[in-house]
Amino acid sequence: MKGFDSIIHAMTTISTGGFSNYDESFSYFNSFKIESISIIFMLIGSLPFVLYLQFLHNQKKLIFKDDQIKLFFLILFIIILLTTIWLTTNQSIDVISAFRIALFNITSILTGTGYTSSNFSNWGSFGIVIMMIIMFVGGCAGSTTGGIKIFRLQILFRGAITQIRKLTQPHAVLVMRFNGKTVNENTYNSIMGFFFMYIFLFILSAVSLSLFNLDFLTAFSAAASAISNVGPGLGEIIGPSGNYFLLDNGAKWILSITMIIGRLEIFTVLVLLSINFWRS
Amino acid sequence: MKGFDSIIHAMTTISTGGFSNYDESFSYFNSFKIESISIIFMLIGSLPFVLYLQFLHNQKKLIFKDDQIKLFFLILFIIILLTTIWLTTNQSIDVISAFRIALFNITSILTGTGYTSSNFSNWGSFGIVIMMIIMFVGGCAGSTTGGIKIFRLQILFRGAITQIRKLTQPHAVLVMRFNGKTVNENTYNSIMGFFFMYIFLFILSAVSLSLFNLDFLTAFSAAASAISNVGPGLGEIIGPSGNYFLLDNGAKWILSITMIIGRLEIFTVLVLLSINFWRS
Repeated sequence: MKGFDSIIHAMTTISTGGFSNYDESFSYFNSFKIESISIIFMLIGSLPFVLYLQFLHNQKKLIFKDDQIKLFFLILFIIILLTTIWLTTNQSIDVISAFRIALFNITSILTGTGYTSSNFSNWGSFGIVIMMIIMFVGGCAGSTTGGIKIFRLQILFRGAITQIRKLTQPHAVLVMRFNGKTVNENTYNSIMGFFFMYIFLFILSAVSLSLFNLDFLTAFSAAASAISNVGPGLGEIIGPSGNYFLLDNGAKWILSITMIIGRLEIFTVLVLLSINFWRS
Repeated sequence: MKGFDSIIHAMTTISTGGFSNYDESFSYFNSFKIESISIIFMLIGSLPFVLYLQFLHNQKKLIFKDDQIKLFFLILFIIILLTTIWLTTNQSIDVISAFRIALFNITSILTGTGYTSSNFSNWGSFGIVIMMIIMFVGGCAGSTTGGIKIFRLQILFRGAITQIRKLTQPHAVLVMRFNGKTVNENTYNSIMGFFFMYIFLFILSAVSLSLFNLDFLTAFSAAASAISNVGPGLGEIIGPSGNYFLLDNGAKWILSITMIIGRLEIFTVLVLLSINFWRS
């Protein structure tokens, strides 16, 4: 790998940015070594940075006890496993190649980096659907990744489970916990508001894109990729083997706005649009 | 219209069930009169039934003041308008035919009835995306329709707005209202839990369907149609011109489970799966 290439890729790996100076992204190098190193640093970029500080300050155990990190690696492991099985059985790729491309591309998309080493638009039905879904997930809070993020999904899930427990035990006092601390009502409500707005703006973006004659898969994956700051979409046009060059200018405007809203985590941008903010 | 046909269609119109004894559904009749009558009764079936009682008890004004009903008709109007414009300009259908098919099919899908008078899989990018989205919406609470339902979406939206207002006015005491009454914390949390579980189970269903080699559009629209109890999906296989006959048995099982969970509004089914319920 040339010095210039390695500097560019190093910078966009640790920042989970995912900008490669080659159109083919990591397919250009086709080297398992380079991919492995990149995977390690993409993962480092998607864990909560504050834990690294704590790690250096002799609180070494915290990093293994964090609820977010545990779930993040569990999700990563299950999806890579399922995809490897799918690619081996349905796309007749040998198991080692299947594992290698699943490992790299899923790590890249889940962390919102956006490098690719295989055109996952050709991974068949399950491959495409799963790539679409993991775009939303993102990494841990306090990292450089985009997406809804693991801790929000965890709290949303626990909130829903608490509702079900309330139905079976109407008089119980139920408290939601995260990393051993109680999640207060305000935090929960704000995460809920965030989740609803995320879905709402994603749909608004997809509907707007469909006005520019983008097909179903392209419109939805472009909106998902933009709001979560991933990079590549799915399908012929904007998939790993294509790019956004061919889109109408109007569609590019919509995607730009969606990317900014997604990157600034929605509320920041919506506050700017509220009258109260400008009045005070 | 034959007596038998009219009885069948009358029963599945008012119940927003949408079962026609003809494969072509309402295209078979191709009559604007029959469509208009059906539209009226589909709408009646998707408003809160308790308001009819209040209407009969001389509280006639309530039906026009209900927040849900206002938003329901506003959404219906805007979507029919946009779709008519889209069909006229991009699909070169004359404006009267465009309005007629938009009116009937959108009313049918939004209310979760599922009758069709046109193959909306051929409506182009915006047509397909919008049909997919409105499957989730459904009618008003207290009606026979499925879907997330208008009042939940209203409260979710207001909740998110309240969060934004909190950011600009941190010390304000903000109260969410619905039909003039305060929405308490419990109601809001339970709706939030419902919304998250709805999205979660929809995605789980779509991912499971993709394992049976259903393409992106088919898997997502089948899952959406099933969880919201609409009926037709989108695309070649399960769109208005096709049916679910060709799907694998495994896919049919997944859709059956999704339909039951959707119809019973999720929590009822999830409570059955909780240990506490069987213990007590």
